[in-house]
Amino acid sequence: MSTSPVDALGYIAAVLTTSSFFPQALKTLRTRDTSGISLGMYLMFTSGVVVWALFGWITGDGPVLVSNLITALPAGLILQRKIQSPR
Amino acid sequence: MSTSPVDALGYIAAVLTTSSFFPQALKTLRTRDTSGISLGMYLMFTSGVVVWALFGWITGDGPVLVSNLITALPAGLILQRKIQSPR
Repeated sequence: MSTSPVDALGYIAAVLTTSSFFPQALKTLRTRDTSGISLGMYLMFTSGVVVWALFGWITGDGPVLVSNLITALPAGLILQRKIQSPR
Repeated sequence: MSTSPVDALGYIAAVLTTSSFFPQALKTLRTRDTSGISLGMYLMFTSGVVVWALFGWITGDGPVLVSNLITALPAGLILQRKIQSPR
C-alpha cells in the first residue's frame, strides 16, 4: 500500500481540521471562559458534523463517518459549556 | 438534474459546517473578546482549510476547493484578531 503526495496532503488537512477542536475544548473546560464563544457557531457546527457523520454512515464512507464522530466530541463539549454558562 | 435525499443530507451538512464560522467571526469582530478563543485551534483549523483548498485545487474537486476557501475567510479573521489581542 502506498500513499501519493496528493493523498498525504488530504490526510494532513484532515488531521489538522479534525484535531483543531481539541485545544479549544481543553481551553474551554479549563478556563470556563465562554464569553467570546459564539453559540450560533457551535449550534451550527455541532449539528453539521452530526449530519456529516449520518451522511458517511448512510453512504458507507468510513473516513467521513469516523472523522466527524471524532470532531463531534470536542464540538459538543464546547456547545454544552456555552449553553450551561452563556457569559 | 435531481438531488437524492442522501445528497440533500450532504448539502445540509456542508452548508452548516461551512457557514458556522461566520457567526463566530461576526461576534469576535463586534466584541473583540478573544480571551476564550483558542489560538491553537485557529492555527490548526485555518492552516487545515488552506491545505484542504490546495487539495481540492490539485485534485480538481470544485466543492472541496470552494467550501474551504469560504471557510478560510472567517477562520483567518478570527485567527488574526486572536493574534492581535491575545487577551
